[in-house]
Amino acid sequence: MNGAETLITALNANSVDVCFANPGTSEMQLVAAIDTAPDMRAILCLFEGVVTGAADGYGRMADRPALTLLHLGPGLGNGTANLHNAKRAGSPVLNMVGDHATYHLQYDAPLTADVKGFAKPVSDWVGVSKSPGNLAGTGLKALGEAMRYPGQVATFIAPADHAWSTAQRTRSELTVPSVPRADSTGIEDAANALKADGEVVLYLGGRALREDALWQAGRIAAATGARLICETFTARLQRGAGRVPVERLPYFGEQAADALKDVTAMVCVGANPPVSFFAYPGKPSWLTPEETILIELADRTVDAEDALVRLADALDAPPEPVALQRAAAPPPDDGPLAPVGIGQAVAQLMPQNAIVSDEAATAGLAMFPSTAGAPAHDWLMLTGGSIGQGLPLAIGAAVACPDRKVIALQADGSAMYTLQSLWTMARENLDVTTIILNNGSYAILNIELQRVGVENPGPKALSLLDLTNPAIDWVSLAKGMGVSAKKASTVAEFQTALEAALNLKGPALIEACIS
Amino acid sequence: MNGAETLITALNANSVDVCFANPGTSEMQLVAAIDTAPDMRAILCLFEGVVTGAADGYGRMADRPALTLLHLGPGLGNGTANLHNAKRAGSPVLNMVGDHATYHLQYDAPLTADVKGFAKPVSDWVGVSKSPGNLAGTGLKALGEAMRYPGQVATFIAPADHAWSTAQRTRSELTVPSVPRADSTGIEDAANALKADGEVVLYLGGRALREDALWQAGRIAAATGARLICETFTARLQRGAGRVPVERLPYFGEQAADALKDVTAMVCVGANPPVSFFAYPGKPSWLTPEETILIELADRTVDAEDALVRLADALDAPPEPVALQRAAAPPPDDGPLAPVGIGQAVAQLMPQNAIVSDEAATAGLAMFPSTAGAPAHDWLMLTGGSIGQGLPLAIGAAVACPDRKVIALQADGSAMYTLQSLWTMARENLDVTTIILNNGSYAILNIELQRVGVENPGPKALSLLDLTNPAIDWVSLAKGMGVSAKKASTVAEFQTALEAALNLKGPALIEACIS
Repeated sequence: MNGAETLITALNANSVDVCFANPGTSEMQLVAAIDTAPDMRAILCLFEGVVTGAADGYGRMADRPALTLLHLGPGLGNGTANLHNAKRAGSPVLNMVGDHATYHLQYDAPLTADVKGFAKPVSDWVGVSKSPGNLAGTGLKALGEAMRYPGQVATFIAPADHAWSTAQRTRSELTVPSVPRADSTGIEDAANALKADGEVVLYLGGRALREDALWQAGRIAAATGARLICETFTARLQRGAGRVPVERLPYFGEQAADALKDVTAMVCVGANPPVSFFAYPGKPSWLTPEETILIELADRTVDAEDALVRLADALDAPPEPVALQRAAAPPPDDGPLAPVGIGQAVAQLMPQNAIVSDEAATAGLAMFPSTAGAPAHDWLMLTGGSIGQGLPLAIGAAVACPDRKVIALQADGSAMYTLQSLWTMARENLDVTTIILNNGSYAILNIELQRVGVENPGPKALSLLDLTNPAIDWVSLAKGMGVSAKKASTVAEFQTALEAALNLKGPALIEACIS
Repeated sequence: MNGAETLITALNANSVDVCFANPGTSEMQLVAAIDTAPDMRAILCLFEGVVTGAADGYGRMADRPALTLLHLGPGLGNGTANLHNAKRAGSPVLNMVGDHATYHLQYDAPLTADVKGFAKPVSDWVGVSKSPGNLAGTGLKALGEAMRYPGQVATFIAPADHAWSTAQRTRSELTVPSVPRADSTGIEDAANALKADGEVVLYLGGRALREDALWQAGRIAAATGARLICETFTARLQRGAGRVPVERLPYFGEQAADALKDVTAMVCVGANPPVSFFAYPGKPSWLTPEETILIELADRTVDAEDALVRLADALDAPPEPVALQRAAAPPPDDGPLAPVGIGQAVAQLMPQNAIVSDEAATAGLAMFPSTAGAPAHDWLMLTGGSIGQGLPLAIGAAVACPDRKVIALQADGSAMYTLQSLWTMARENLDVTTIILNNGSYAILNIELQRVGVENPGPKALSLLDLTNPAIDWVSLAKGMGVSAKKASTVAEFQTALEAALNLKGPALIEACIS
């Protein structure tokens, strides 16, 4: 065996069975080794941002990592934006990055770069193979780190000569770090804070937003009257009919501060205390009132469900939540297409157990409430703020959950960053319905321009926020990459197109023209 | 004035007049400030890799930097691959990267990242503004570093509160570092080496490949019989009819080693000694014979033309080169389309003074010789090996040289990394003819797979190198972004399409179907 084969075999033996890849010459042995692992699937993406975003989506839905295959420093560089998002999501992601043969580095050939330097800002853990015999062990160590609760971005660097040289099958074994638990004093403090008079909040993020954890949060609400609020951008929120509903913290700082203005006590589970997404002149970054009692019971690296169970028990909470979301999907009124109507149509037509990848930006904020009563589903969001995540995330979710329908709600400007995703959806026949919300604008920036205090933007500034000249024709772009597509300008057109797309088992795109 | 206005005004006053931008909320004041600089052009790109690649192309053709505008760490991350290429090209590039307001960083909001960490692997110089009053000075310092001969990637980080706070017009002035000259001993050693018996070579890169420097190299060849060889991938080679011709070092290591096997002495100007692009098992990385006398007269940071003039004079070289390239553009034979025929058709139809952006990979290696006798032109190549450079580079070249025709020779696989470039070409009506060489494959990797010693690649490995399922339809992709496009499968079809595209003043795309 060569080093590459020992590595891929060891990872595959430890349940790594998907590799999202965009390889180059220095990774050819790693590529060839995939064929020696019968249970590993290889999925080509035509840009590295698609690779890493897909691994994020896979990790969120599978709760175990996919492998990525990236070409040296610059290939990793192209994947960094979505790794940033994955790191912020707490997703398990295992990056395998090729490098030149160790003896070749001294010659400073054109692709030579500081691979570790590229990796560090976007990885929770970085390792470098030290020898052909060490390559598989390094990969397994990285796999263990990727699986550290709730999930980490772990990157290991595989020099080409370690991959191609002869090596023995590794004796290393997988070690997954144990999950820290909230300490008992914290549980007690939290219980006391929630029992006190005033407006009390359970602020939830990370794994606290899975169905079972939310059930416990619902018990706590039943015992204390606490409001349940989740982070504005969450990795994976299990919601819809029959589940415990949570309020979503508004995106805009003023609105968020207003939503929290009367909060006397807040207990955070799976999340840090709420802060403003961006800074704005004269507006606060910290969103809770100064006098709010804050109990940071469990940050996202601490077992969220365990903390909630123990907190509920400490409160002698009833066995059932105070309320579950009732099914409600009122049909939209016909007329020109707008986000609320799209949200209503999606809620009405989406199948049970769908997965929504929401990178719909301004439009997404409007669609979220109108899908509250839809059949139970998972809602995945842009956790790190770096746009171009939504379509790759949909790929990964579809690969992780081949029996579930994936719906990508995708803003037009953001979609352009990783539009190559459509090709992989077509190649793998992934069951993804992509809805492009085409408003011909970076709409959010037109709002933000005002909010940061720019009063009279000039024509050059405005041109940088505009996507209409030329208008982007998403039906043609989809066709160019093998995905069938339809354009819709009215609610009725949209409903017809959506029904057809959802009935298809495979990829489809709807260009929703909104104003 | 606010800090952003002092910065943009100062840069504009020092001849920075183009900004390739992909901004976000934290850069809104920088965006607004562009309108206060009447001579600064703002060009929106829909992905950061387009921004940085365009700045590279602009820098290569203008010999002064464009400004980029990038959004925080992940936005810079998306631009790193083409910054790697720019750094390897020795291009002047001035990156302006926004960051959160300084006081906001402590809250670790979702987009918070180690911006400097993202910048370091791809920048020759990194600076961070320390205060609103320091922002313009930091920008000017970066500008000076970007202009350090032959050009550098200089990145400065602009916190949002430094941009929006009040600041005085800066008193800082631009300082451009002086250009180091080759030392006299080196000139003497080089002259002696070239006068000795045997096969002597002048190995050229960087600024040694501009027309005037090549003239001097031609004089040296006339005096000594030296072969003139250039690096395989050069930032900007001025070639074609009437210019001093140079051999191009072959890409594949074995062929390169063979081309150099009898070399007794080599003098390097604007380049380091030749090494293999990748390492291969059992093949040498170092390409010159062990016994070759190597004189590293001037690496690329040393004034190349000065070194060549002094070397020519030290050799009492005649005033004229031994030979100039004669005009020769034989028409291609009709038949199925292949790279040689495309090269011949391009050579035959291209106007005087065209700029060629060559990221045609395997096809490009074949087209290069067939364009040797074309009208004088500049040939720009992929200097850092990170694919996705060609189309952005064409944008930058077209902005820098609005009166010259730009021809992008672009491999299909590579084109997919930064296809968003087509939209900017349409928006700015750039005079670029893009030729997509569609062979439905990462063809180079099918060759490399064998060369690294993979003997019987399995179906999963081969699937990762294949682009045919689904086939990419470039005519639709171009249409989707507002660029008119034609498909050509025969030489005659290609000639007709190329003639029409070259006669148009504006962007056009030809999908050349090759096997």
